Amino acid sequence: MRLGRSNMTNDLLVQKVKTWLYKTGELAKKLEKSQLQITTKSSRNDVVTNVDKEVQRFLVAKIESEFPEDKILAEEDEKSSLVDMSGRVWLIDPIDGTLNFVFQRENFAIMIGVYEDGIGKLGFIYDVMRSELYWGGAGLGVFCNENKLESPKNSGAKDGLWGINVGMYVQNVGNIQAVGENAMGVRMIGSAGLEFISMLKGNTIGYISNLYPWDYAPGVVLIKEFGFKASGLDGLALTFNGQQYFIAATTQAYNEIMKMC
Amino acid sequence: MRLGRSNMTNDLLVQKVKTWLYKTGELAKKLEKSQLQITTKSSRNDVVTNVDKEVQRFLVAKIESEFPEDKILAEEDEKSSLVDMSGRVWLIDPIDGTLNFVFQRENFAIMIGVYEDGIGKLGFIYDVMRSELYWGGAGLGVFCNENKLESPKNSGAKDGLWGINVGMYVQNVGNIQAVGENAMGVRMIGSAGLEFISMLKGNTIGYISNLYPWDYAPGVVLIKEFGFKASGLDGLALTFNGQQYFIAATTQAYNEIMKMC
Repeated sequence: MRLGRSNMTNDLLVQKVKTWLYKTGELAKKLEKSQLQITTKSSRNDVVTNVDKEVQRFLVAKIESEFPEDKILAEEDEKSSLVDMSGRVWLIDPIDGTLNFVFQRENFAIMIGVYEDGIGKLGFIYDVMRSELYWGGAGLGVFCNENKLESPKNSGAKDGLWGINVGMYVQNVGNIQAVGENAMGVRMIGSAGLEFISMLKGNTIGYISNLYPWDYAPGVVLIKEFGFKASGLDGLALTFNGQQYFIAATTQAYNEIMKMC
Repeated sequence: MRLGRSNMTNDLLVQKVKTWLYKTGELAKKLEKSQLQITTKSSRNDVVTNVDKEVQRFLVAKIESEFPEDKILAEEDEKSSLVDMSGRVWLIDPIDGTLNFVFQRENFAIMIGVYEDGIGKLGFIYDVMRSELYWGGAGLGVFCNENKLESPKNSGAKDGLWGINVGMYVQNVGNIQAVGENAMGVRMIGSAGLEFISMLKGNTIGYISNLYPWDYAPGVVLIKEFGFKASGLDGLALTFNGQQYFIAATTQAYNEIMKMC
């Protein structure tokens, strides 16, 4: 039986996506035990593996079979550009933190965001190796597995740690060294998904990086549910189109940084 | 019964230290649930908590009671300087990664190194929140809890990820931006202990930071057992005296970097 967009409740959709994600987690764990096939993309540090491709293929096939009217924007291959965000759009990062996946076999995530007419509805960040699936959505709250999380404190920009892309930090893009120096410290995990999880847990106050839509779409749904703000580093709206300097932070920290940078 | 230095086997000593560490882990978990008392030291980002002090007090009391002839070099209070490394010396970092401890309540470690006449004998890095105790010593091998680890590959400097102190990286101390740009990527956890664990697991090839003896003494024992090299960033021997620019890496990567920087 195919359930169309109009007659499936959020609950059913969430259950379905979770089932898919658990399967992709098993797939990733199985495939990483055999030899990885690693291909470089735009540069030496921009790599894709057979696992990225297999996970994406699995998820795309599920979505296309169940929801043939929906659109898909995904990191690999021919799915990586989209004309517009109208209708229901699935944003997929099959392996977020591919370098961590290749060299650490941990500290990566499988991610899905569900948007309707450009508005974030559901977000899923699956930290496969820690068996932690963070998920939630507009009006649903945010969960880690079956535990509902509490919103972290609305901290100021200087009152904790920030996740910042190291390349941007060294180049001082948008004067972000001032953000780091003003803060208690800077951390760099190497996976956007894990940086969003870090904000959800209150481990970091904010995150600045250079991201594609599939990197930020799932996490933005979740952190907004906790009152965080997210935008381009220039304060303009996220474009969901190509790579963009990105900032997310608690409301207080975000407002402070927008005055500072 | 008190067992003196001469008549205690390594095995007994290891068991004793592990028992102490498990107790300090319980102590840290109990104390962090109540209100932390946080005091700044040299700067706003250099903090100590009541937990650091309580853990150190516990370990110092155990060592002084069991091994009254031994020396202690530890991060907090009056134990933080030592005239020389002769005899048996215990190096203690009661909470390594204090900012992570304060803001994240994870990603910190309790660490002990045991040195004899300046030679590393035993190292312990306890990742309390993950219940992972990395330990081992000269000729003993390296373990995570009861599992003996295999030595990671002797990778070249460009063939993986590095842990690098973000402040040093921005200032390009010792030309280390060349190390980062040559590598596949740079990560920053914010705990020396966890950076050493990362090398032991093969997650990172090397680590560059600005460290005190209690930050590097335990980890150096363990990584040397796996053939890594460690020294001052200038290539000179570790001083075990005050803060020092530090580098550790696989033999191949270390040798490459020493030619490069």
